[in-house]
Amino acid sequence: MSNTSRVLSVNDINGAWAIMPTPAKPGADDWRMTDTVDLDEVARVAEELVKSGVNGILSLGTFGEGASLTWEEKRKVIGTMVETVRGRVPYFCGTTTTNTRDTIQQTKEAYDIGADGTMLGLPMWQICDTKSAVRFYHDVAEAVPDMSIAVYANPEAFKFDFPRPFWAQVADIPQVVTCKYIGVATLYLDLMLTKGKIRFLPIDMDYVPAARIDPENITAFWTSGTNCGPLPALHLRDEVIKAKQTGDWTKATELQNAILHTAQTLMPNGSFKEFSTYNVQLEKARFNAGGWMNAGPARPPYRFDSVPESYLEGARISGQRWAELHKKLSQQGN
Amino acid sequence: MSNTSRVLSVNDINGAWAIMPTPAKPGADDWRMTDTVDLDEVARVAEELVKSGVNGILSLGTFGEGASLTWEEKRKVIGTMVETVRGRVPYFCGTTTTNTRDTIQQTKEAYDIGADGTMLGLPMWQICDTKSAVRFYHDVAEAVPDMSIAVYANPEAFKFDFPRPFWAQVADIPQVVTCKYIGVATLYLDLMLTKGKIRFLPIDMDYVPAARIDPENITAFWTSGTNCGPLPALHLRDEVIKAKQTGDWTKATELQNAILHTAQTLMPNGSFKEFSTYNVQLEKARFNAGGWMNAGPARPPYRFDSVPESYLEGARISGQRWAELHKKLSQQGN
Amino acid sequence: MSNTSRVLSVNDINGAWAIMPTPAKPGADDWRMTDTVDLDEVARVAEELVKSGVNGILSLGTFGEGASLTWEEKRKVIGTMVETVRGRVPYFCGTTTTNTRDTIQQTKEAYDIGADGTMLGLPMWQICDTKSAVRFYHDVAEAVPDMSIAVYANPEAFKFDFPRPFWAQVADIPQVVTCKYIGVATLYLDLMLTKGKIRFLPIDMDYVPAARIDPENITAFWTSGTNCGPLPALHLRDEVIKAKQTGDWTKATELQNAILHTAQTLMPNGSFKEFSTYNVQLEKARFNAGGWMNAGPARPPYRFDSVPESYLEGARISGQRWAELHKKLSQQGN
Amino acid sequence: MSNTSRVLSVNDINGAWAIMPTPAKPGADDWRMTDTVDLDEVARVAEELVKSGVNGILSLGTFGEGASLTWEEKRKVIGTMVETVRGRVPYFCGTTTTNTRDTIQQTKEAYDIGADGTMLGLPMWQICDTKSAVRFYHDVAEAVPDMSIAVYANPEAFKFDFPRPFWAQVADIPQVVTCKYIGVATLYLDLMLTKGKIRFLPIDMDYVPAARIDPENITAFWTSGTNCGPLPALHLRDEVIKAKQTGDWTKATELQNAILHTAQTLMPNGSFKEFSTYNVQLEKARFNAGGWMNAGPARPPYRFDSVPESYLEGARISGQRWAELHKKLSQQGN
Repeated sequence: MSNTSRVLSVNDINGAWAIMPTPAKPGADDWRMTDTVDLDEVARVAEELVKSGVNGILSLGTFGEGASLTWEEKRKVIGTMVETVRGRVPYFCGTTTTNTRDTIQQTKEAYDIGADGTMLGLPMWQICDTKSAVRFYHDVAEAVPDMSIAVYANPEAFKFDFPRPFWAQVADIPQVVTCKYIGVATLYLDLMLTKGKIRFLPIDMDYVPAARIDPENITAFWTSGTNCGPLPALHLRDEVIKAKQTGDWTKATELQNAILHTAQTLMPNGSFKEFSTYNVQLEKARFNAGGWMNAGPARPPYRFDSVPESYLEGARISGQRWAELHKKLSQQGN
Repeated sequence: MSNTSRVLSVNDINGAWAIMPTPAKPGADDWRMTDTVDLDEVARVAEELVKSGVNGILSLGTFGEGASLTWEEKRKVIGTMVETVRGRVPYFCGTTTTNTRDTIQQTKEAYDIGADGTMLGLPMWQICDTKSAVRFYHDVAEAVPDMSIAVYANPEAFKFDFPRPFWAQVADIPQVVTCKYIGVATLYLDLMLTKGKIRFLPIDMDYVPAARIDPENITAFWTSGTNCGPLPALHLRDEVIKAKQTGDWTKATELQNAILHTAQTLMPNGSFKEFSTYNVQLEKARFNAGGWMNAGPARPPYRFDSVPESYLEGARISGQRWAELHKKLSQQGN
Repeated sequence: MSNTSRVLSVNDINGAWAIMPTPAKPGADDWRMTDTVDLDEVARVAEELVKSGVNGILSLGTFGEGASLTWEEKRKVIGTMVETVRGRVPYFCGTTTTNTRDTIQQTKEAYDIGADGTMLGLPMWQICDTKSAVRFYHDVAEAVPDMSIAVYANPEAFKFDFPRPFWAQVADIPQVVTCKYIGVATLYLDLMLTKGKIRFLPIDMDYVPAARIDPENITAFWTSGTNCGPLPALHLRDEVIKAKQTGDWTKATELQNAILHTAQTLMPNGSFKEFSTYNVQLEKARFNAGGWMNAGPARPPYRFDSVPESYLEGARISGQRWAELHKKLSQQGN
Repeated sequence: MSNTSRVLSVNDINGAWAIMPTPAKPGADDWRMTDTVDLDEVARVAEELVKSGVNGILSLGTFGEGASLTWEEKRKVIGTMVETVRGRVPYFCGTTTTNTRDTIQQTKEAYDIGADGTMLGLPMWQICDTKSAVRFYHDVAEAVPDMSIAVYANPEAFKFDFPRPFWAQVADIPQVVTCKYIGVATLYLDLMLTKGKIRFLPIDMDYVPAARIDPENITAFWTSGTNCGPLPALHLRDEVIKAKQTGDWTKATELQNAILHTAQTLMPNGSFKEFSTYNVQLEKARFNAGGWMNAGPARPPYRFDSVPESYLEGARISGQRWAELHKKLSQQGN
């Protein structure tokens, strides 16, 4: 931490941004356990991700169980992450709560601990209107002016559809430099509106089509597949760079399709809505099946034993497929 | 607090149950204010409600801004409520959070302070499935076994439609003795399923039709109109008791219609969904306009200045109409 | 047909109104069949219903496959119904189409054939706004002024939520005398708005709670259970009349619960939305299983073989339960 | 028309496909008018579109008022279109009805009149499941094997979300060669699934981003802007061809943005859902304001006087902007 502003610029956001879960100790799905985080695994995974070459790390989002951890636990996670990452790549924690003031308090503490940014969703008790949503980000930025903000644009979790007027206004907040985005439907229009002020991060599964829409501005993506082994995401990043230079998208598209194949069984009955009801558990089951890290059980109230077995099985197959792709790329010589 | 269980039984829940907002000091809509609660007004309103004869008090729900208060503030509200009410009527606070363990922690502390129960909704980050929802209530009841629980059945806030299998199962948790219910559509079926184990509280606006459906089991209702003056709700309670005895519903129906008249302008364009987007602010504007109490500004992120002026005006008219009805009944000699 | 108006008044609408399916010949689920209606069974069922004592008959709604029949077929159904019923009870056909002019044309022809009314839903291509919806009913009433109209208030089919301003305005059209209603949620408010100008028909499953809400105005209901045997519905009608006189709802409630028991397996997973996707087929499967009539196969595109077998099985059990209740009541001596 | 199959192949579908409204005579918004179509204007517009160089014409969809015309009127429209177009470009009419058999009957007649294909949506009374939806297209294709089919993938009108299993199966029906598609969100995945068997037509507003996602397979688009003057759509088509060859998307993107500018005021409050409630009227108001053709009034029940004036004004501005763009391109020398 220096005296000058630590806020990132949009040009600092490039490449593969890995989102981590919060590893849980055995028994963490019981409400009686008060200290559920496996901090050793947190540190190990963060170190591996940095060494592998990811460009940024995000944590404490949905499958990071930001909502199911106590603030005491979240603080320890942030501390371990900051100590491990040591500024080698930007690190964003998550400080979404049910109101403005608790979020500001958590964001201040996270900044003091050393986090570079927060992946921040909206208070989700009431449905937010656009004006309240924009002011929420504005208030947090005003209160913690040196913290970078990634808009966590998850309509299911936050009951907000992140419409165009939102993007047009939130883009004028200097601290808002990036966002975790779902879908490519409206990407083109939202990009135009925000005139290069926000780096939109499509999901790894959409990166090739998104990058082809606007090669200049779509230069980064988010990925959770990295928790099953980082190579597919890193190769995807590099193949897209090559494709943009040569105009030949064949190899990038092949890899994109291989990644899509791993995701095929992740959505129960192909339904995103059904997936959303169990996303914490399905993502953790996927990571555990990948064998690259130990995400542990899911914390209450979103426990594994609520999920239909066939859904969990689909998630596990997805994790295994990604792990196989990682292994194959590894054997090709990374 | 004695050694014997303080858990209420379903037969302890009767009459008019008033839901209070959390009075806010001037400036409480600014995120910079850390101590926003007007505790004097909390105590004054609670005392007035008890003296007027309401049968129970609930607080820290949606318009009670349970989601927008810090835990430090909520603790003070609970303390003031307990000290003021002094066991004269049951007092339920609210301890809904985004996860099981924080809710248990808050519920334990609230119990230790002296609250009789908690009006408890579901964690609302992910959509809950029925199994997770039932277990959530089960876990809280297991962790704080002497705390009574009112299910806070608000589908908009908690993304859960409270289906029949939920009621069938949650009714078997002894601590779950009542619920804040919306609509009379499924009341009849849900009542049958729960076989008298839960006292369903319809809203004051639905009390006559609900009580006519099942006069034996519908013996209580919730009301927020009391914050504009308690008499309309108390008269409604008494007229329904008389109507059940005599079989003549004329006067009860007349009063019910007068209450409905006050509510007519509360829903923007008659839309409950539109109301839900601004319910905190619209209810607080309504209470302030009633002149019976001072609810103060709305805390961030759900501030008055997000709401279209015509919506606020409808809420104010609603509060004034209720206050006039209260005055009229007062002049008739309560 | 006389020279005087044949339009019914709200007071002509009382008791049990049976909704009939349109019996189909074997093979009617194949698009190659052009003349699918089993007119003998149409006549037989209509005669049995009239003789059993139902108070009115409706047809050509959703499970009456009004949408899946050609106009040529519908015309024959109406002709057979009119000839069979011979004015002994009111008969309403269905003339919903995708636009105003086709509906007027069909309604005129149905009137000329001798139908007393039309159970009429909205054009369902575009979502209707309230103004268009009211004018639609107004236009039909103006074009065929001697035809009575039952508003077919099905929000799933017609993409319209039939809000209060709609009822307030449509009640002023003299031809609109009744409506097929779902739920009791808003019944009380909608009744108040329409001030006795429309007879609201709740479903047989809701009749006791609805009648208790407003005994004076809720004097009729619609039923499809009659297609599995008419006695449960007719007894329900009579028990409610007695209960209103004596104030003792015990027997009416017992019968209501027995009817609810038959319906328990009809909704797949208890979900009305899931039921709505297959309601034509599930209702027809239910009627066929009841053994009282032969509804035959379901016409394309809504064929039996699209429906999960477990859903069909639930519908069949529902039909068998109703048939058993019918038999039991029959043996008690009707 | 020859003796050999008239069914188009996917490779016959390229370039700009214009969707026409059905011009209405003055007074056509009154239900009393039985012959509402301005056939002279139908012929004039079709001739102008063909001469201007559009690659295909579709009609009788949503704003083509296929749902609000009588079959007698639709038949005349098809006849006039066939006579005017004379095979110079493919012509697709629309034969969506509320059931399989009426659709087959209309499709047969349309084929006999000389239409090349039908832009075909699903029966929309019940929500279709995937199996029923696929069989519907299969049945029509089997019944009229020489008619080409464009899937009319409008989720709002047909209550069907056109999921991936639908595309995977419907792509195996040889007659299904193209589809009118909304959004680019799932385009990439749906394209992969259908392996080049269906030409997906994005809307003119999405053409550049869609074409960049998959330049080889996205070679055509649909446009309604042509009704305000064809040049912007034709230039867009040509600029995209050039961009694919040179790899320089600058000019195509500029034109795309200019087209987006014309659309900016078309969606009321930027809401697609709100637009969907009035799309017939808003599109017709837009075309009338463009001055290039006379679409006339909107037929009942979807009349202009149901629409808020500010919505209509937005549509008119959109039409004027498109007309200005057309004029500007015209002056540059087409």
